[in-house]
Amino acid sequence: MDKPYVIGMDMGGTNTVFGIVDTRGTVIAKSAIKTGAHTDVNLYINDIHEELSKLIDAAGGIDKIKGIGVGAPNGNYYTGNIEFAPNLPWKGIIPFAKLMADKFGIPAALTNDANAAAVGELTYGAARGMKNFIMITLGTGVGSGIVIDGKVVYGHDGFAGELGHVNVIRNNGRLCGCGRTGCLEAYASATGVARSAREILETSSKESLLRNIPSEDITSKDVFDAAKEGDEIAIEIFNFTGKILGEAFADFIAFSAPEAIILFGGLSKAGDLIMRPIVENMEKNLLNIWKGKVKVLFSELKEADAAVLGASALAWEI
Amino acid sequence: MDKPYVIGMDMGGTNTVFGIVDTRGTVIAKSAIKTGAHTDVNLYINDIHEELSKLIDAAGGIDKIKGIGVGAPNGNYYTGNIEFAPNLPWKGIIPFAKLMADKFGIPAALTNDANAAAVGELTYGAARGMKNFIMITLGTGVGSGIVIDGKVVYGHDGFAGELGHVNVIRNNGRLCGCGRTGCLEAYASATGVARSAREILETSSKESLLRNIPSEDITSKDVFDAAKEGDEIAIEIFNFTGKILGEAFADFIAFSAPEAIILFGGLSKAGDLIMRPIVENMEKNLLNIWKGKVKVLFSELKEADAAVLGASALAWEI
Repeated sequence: MDKPYVIGMDMGGTNTVFGIVDTRGTVIAKSAIKTGAHTDVNLYINDIHEELSKLIDAAGGIDKIKGIGVGAPNGNYYTGNIEFAPNLPWKGIIPFAKLMADKFGIPAALTNDANAAAVGELTYGAARGMKNFIMITLGTGVGSGIVIDGKVVYGHDGFAGELGHVNVIRNNGRLCGCGRTGCLEAYASATGVARSAREILETSSKESLLRNIPSEDITSKDVFDAAKEGDEIAIEIFNFTGKILGEAFADFIAFSAPEAIILFGGLSKAGDLIMRPIVENMEKNLLNIWKGKVKVLFSELKEADAAVLGASALAWEI
Repeated sequence: MDKPYVIGMDMGGTNTVFGIVDTRGTVIAKSAIKTGAHTDVNLYINDIHEELSKLIDAAGGIDKIKGIGVGAPNGNYYTGNIEFAPNLPWKGIIPFAKLMADKFGIPAALTNDANAAAVGELTYGAARGMKNFIMITLGTGVGSGIVIDGKVVYGHDGFAGELGHVNVIRNNGRLCGCGRTGCLEAYASATGVARSAREILETSSKESLLRNIPSEDITSKDVFDAAKEGDEIAIEIFNFTGKILGEAFADFIAFSAPEAIILFGGLSKAGDLIMRPIVENMEKNLLNIWKGKVKVLFSELKEADAAVLGASALAWEI
């Protein structure tokens, strides 16, 4: 009651961003350090402590902070551990929530970044008041946070909600970063969209603004820029990506019958270019009982603050 | 506390079976009536009441009964309604739980048959003590009941868990009873297995016991009988069915990270013939974090009693 703030921390492979957040979802102070520069996790935590302490003091001291929520790759909510994260400098199993709680003297909770985004959306964003929704994060990878009956689904082991790794192309699917083939992430991530661009440019003879860029250098941002100009190939790339996503969403809905699917991350900036083919293909593939009934929405969290907000929301529930 | 029994009722398109069940999952009395013979749902309930009253009286009267649990096609747990069930004689929306509660003067709850099976397994069967599992019913159709954190997932609208209708063959998939193509049910149901038999027999020149049966008459039971004799084509049919199931299970696990997937219904009688290809293909398609960690089990409910037991278990929670 008397603790008006929580700390949210978003750990990426490159940067770690953290901030102090109030009950209404306002980030009242924010800072960042480099993640990759720290090969020892204890030194990393020391640097976070040093940087965060300034913000904490400015906010009235540690007694004003209820707890720390961390969104981290391969973060396990049940154990508070980061387990075998391929893109972090520390290998094996790191008891990160415990290390943070010990260092700061307040409770800490941890989950993966997509689950943190779902909690953020539930607490401060488009999912306020919803009991059942699925958050899909479309960034460098494709992640998901599933909320059922008002709670994030962690499953038996803490790792539930890996919807970026359901199979969408069973035969001759693209190789995914996880080592398997045909995963949703291999098509709907930023690099997936860039791969689609190269494939479609190669099999088409149509003019395209994208032909002005060396094939290997095309990014999903380039595809977006070209599509805004009305470039047919670029629009076809969005249609293809949206089809894959829409078909996958129809299956997700058969699982948990959510009220909405909420999109977050880079690709969702494409707005109607990606929304239209998603909804069209989702509707085409839904069972009759769900046709026209499940919303697809964009996240309402401000992008710059979303990751910190999402992580911070965890700390209210500790 | 002083009510030692519940009533379980399993409504099928042909027969309706009901029984009185004690806290340990023993069906102490059981009876049945024809479903299809009743075009008026009120007359149907009258007949059930008449038949059940004999059992209730023998068990010590209605005061000994905590409630009635009903498993029904298209049954909605939230509303207690049966909604647009294609295989029942009553059309539209039937407030079945309310009708039963009014007639018997005790509480009634209703869900679909696969969710009822999941509750039965949780209460009396292989899932006792589990918090997270998925029940897959392999019968005339393919149904599912998903349990997360110890509770059946009903979703936003009460219809969650339609895993028989996820897409498993995206292009040129078989037509499913739901009107779409490529659903799991079109491959892993009893009729799906019979269709696989016809397809595989047509595209192979191998000898097979199944060639002694007119192609249109082959049933999944025939395939099982032939496979037990070592018939190569029949074994190939099970391998194909198990592959489709195992691949689908890998995606289900990415959703809710269950401790186990539990198989129920006709096809599960095939034992290792179906279990081996399921597990092999599931493992091959799992993300590394789940390899070797998720059990696939057969239901432990006695088949003759399972549907009644499953439905009855609902009534303990009313």
